[in-house]
Amino acid sequence: MRKIILLVSAMLFSLSLGLLGQAPPHVVSPEVQSDGHVTFRLAAPNAAKVVVNVEGQRDPAPMQKDENGVWTATVGPLQPDIYGYSLIADGVSLIDPSNQLMKPNLLFTQSAVHIPDPARSWEVSDVPHGEIHHHFYHSKVNGFDSDFYVYTPPNYDPNKKTDYPVLYLLHGFSDGADGWSAVGRANFIFDNLIAQGKAKPMIVVMPLGYGDYEVIRRGWTSWSDKELALRNLSKFTDALLGEVLPQVEAEYRVKKGRESRAIAGLSMGGAESLRTGLNHLDQFAWIGAFSSGGIDLRDFSAEFPAVDTDTNKKLKLLWIACGTDDGLIKINRDFKSWLKSKDVKFSDIETPGAHTWMVWRRNLTALVPLLFQ
Amino acid sequence: MRKIILLVSAMLFSLSLGLLGQAPPHVVSPEVQSDGHVTFRLAAPNAAKVVVNVEGQRDPAPMQKDENGVWTATVGPLQPDIYGYSLIADGVSLIDPSNQLMKPNLLFTQSAVHIPDPARSWEVSDVPHGEIHHHFYHSKVNGFDSDFYVYTPPNYDPNKKTDYPVLYLLHGFSDGADGWSAVGRANFIFDNLIAQGKAKPMIVVMPLGYGDYEVIRRGWTSWSDKELALRNLSKFTDALLGEVLPQVEAEYRVKKGRESRAIAGLSMGGAESLRTGLNHLDQFAWIGAFSSGGIDLRDFSAEFPAVDTDTNKKLKLLWIACGTDDGLIKINRDFKSWLKSKDVKFSDIETPGAHTWMVWRRNLTALVPLLFQ
Repeated sequence: MRKIILLVSAMLFSLSLGLLGQAPPHVVSPEVQSDGHVTFRLAAPNAAKVVVNVEGQRDPAPMQKDENGVWTATVGPLQPDIYGYSLIADGVSLIDPSNQLMKPNLLFTQSAVHIPDPARSWEVSDVPHGEIHHHFYHSKVNGFDSDFYVYTPPNYDPNKKTDYPVLYLLHGFSDGADGWSAVGRANFIFDNLIAQGKAKPMIVVMPLGYGDYEVIRRGWTSWSDKELALRNLSKFTDALLGEVLPQVEAEYRVKKGRESRAIAGLSMGGAESLRTGLNHLDQFAWIGAFSSGGIDLRDFSAEFPAVDTDTNKKLKLLWIACGTDDGLIKINRDFKSWLKSKDVKFSDIETPGAHTWMVWRRNLTALVPLLFQ
Repeated sequence: MRKIILLVSAMLFSLSLGLLGQAPPHVVSPEVQSDGHVTFRLAAPNAAKVVVNVEGQRDPAPMQKDENGVWTATVGPLQPDIYGYSLIADGVSLIDPSNQLMKPNLLFTQSAVHIPDPARSWEVSDVPHGEIHHHFYHSKVNGFDSDFYVYTPPNYDPNKKTDYPVLYLLHGFSDGADGWSAVGRANFIFDNLIAQGKAKPMIVVMPLGYGDYEVIRRGWTSWSDKELALRNLSKFTDALLGEVLPQVEAEYRVKKGRESRAIAGLSMGGAESLRTGLNHLDQFAWIGAFSSGGIDLRDFSAEFPAVDTDTNKKLKLLWIACGTDDGLIKINRDFKSWLKSKDVKFSDIETPGAHTWMVWRRNLTALVPLLFQ
């Protein structure tokens, strides 16, 4: 009896200690070791279960609690890259409170860990840097305040009569207009490829990718409403061609005409690139689609009515990429089969990886040297 | 005895339920009511104590747990503004996992809640918008990769021969170069003031504000190392005058000369504005300092050796602002007394509020109409 009272007292005592709200121990997280192992930590003295979910890892890693209430897990070794991750405490996905590096997103911002390697295309190198220009405008086509980013390459000078080709580069569902710059690090990828002589200097336009903002308000369930999903895609194309493209061509030194215009994107942005590009070959001669999602909303013939025997004559490049662990690999393979059945020529790669930015940064690095050549 | 065993069993049972890691209930947070009350929620079934700490509120508000493990607190009514906040669970400051709106910061990113009011200067209005340009460069003066943002006003055209005056606008300690745009919403403040005819169209340069990045690696303790703190301030001035200003004047259509240049900033950026401005009146005729911190590192005479009887002849404006609840109000009052003792003319305001962006957005709104008039 005494032992049990003692036990309960001890439990109540430790509970009251928690209620006092003492300062938690200082923790360092994430800690990247030189061999690529990464240690994650979270002070959560009363949590019953904490795991860390790292982008590209098959399963969340269980964390262990020490006597100070700090949970720890070491993962890896991870290849040099930038990984999103969440600390999941009693089922709730948390941003790591010890880490300011994040993957911004309109629906699910995560922490990020950067495992550096100077040789990777997305690292900041000692090369000339381009600039990123952020434009704000009210979209009359879409009925909301919208924005787009424009990358101009190093030595771009609006007063010089050098005109550049343009890539329209589209983000995925749930990203903001800053997806390709803030998460994809597209500007550094272009800086590096241009400095290495692998890519032609070009202007890159990164618009907000929604035609109906209701898809963001409703979140991932939007895609089960096919009417909304199709409206979102088609009204995006209307705003891109009717509003963004004319603003860019008025303000920047761009080469005009279809052979100087490319369109590429990831996931939802892949579908938008295919729909906008293949249905407007009078405007675009270069098309890239990474891990396209949303191309299965209707049958392909209804989705791409403009694809016909003239398509090959107009296309300079149709480039299709997908990770082999991506849930969208099947629809992408189906789409490639359909293109073959229509005798439409394309290039394609399948790479290791799932539906992640690790795949898309590499996709961009592989595609850009092919453009405008 | 049986009752105690039952009690312990019940406690162990509820513990094991937690270990199962069930999906937490869906929560909405923050929820802004039309009268300005804000409800914050956090699912944290095993936490012993959760509070919400809202910027500008004197004390954290205790949260109450319901039977689903969701903690709730309602705060307010709050005036229309953008407030940073943290959910503090068992002493650990968390970003609200239900909210994607944040106040980015290099040392302490917080969640943010926006209580809208179309009349406020920082809201997005149906007026012409300027653009924000993001520049990346390697600072040879400071020895690290640095960046700066440039706001160009609506209708700015690099090909037209209209030249604009320039404001160098400096963030505070722990902010990134995006402090004034991402948190301060300076671009929208300028859009609105220009559209209302209250401000002259101007170019605004927002540089990364550190001369020695060691101050960020060491965090807030840096300021106890006076040598480091002074080096950080003085090397910032060197990079601003030697690197950023020449790049801006080469690339943008700016009026040159001291009477077309202003410098203003908040907290550490206030000290940098005063040190750079008052010691380089050959370069700047307009100086603003909001809630300046770091001006007490030496005595004022050593800090501002260039202040002399000619200062009034050169100054078009010296404008000093501080919130009355700001811990730095005393040093700012001491500084103003010192200026009086030197017969240096200045304008000043003291406003309600503490060391927060709510004060600084209003300070910018008050200062900008005075510049270049």
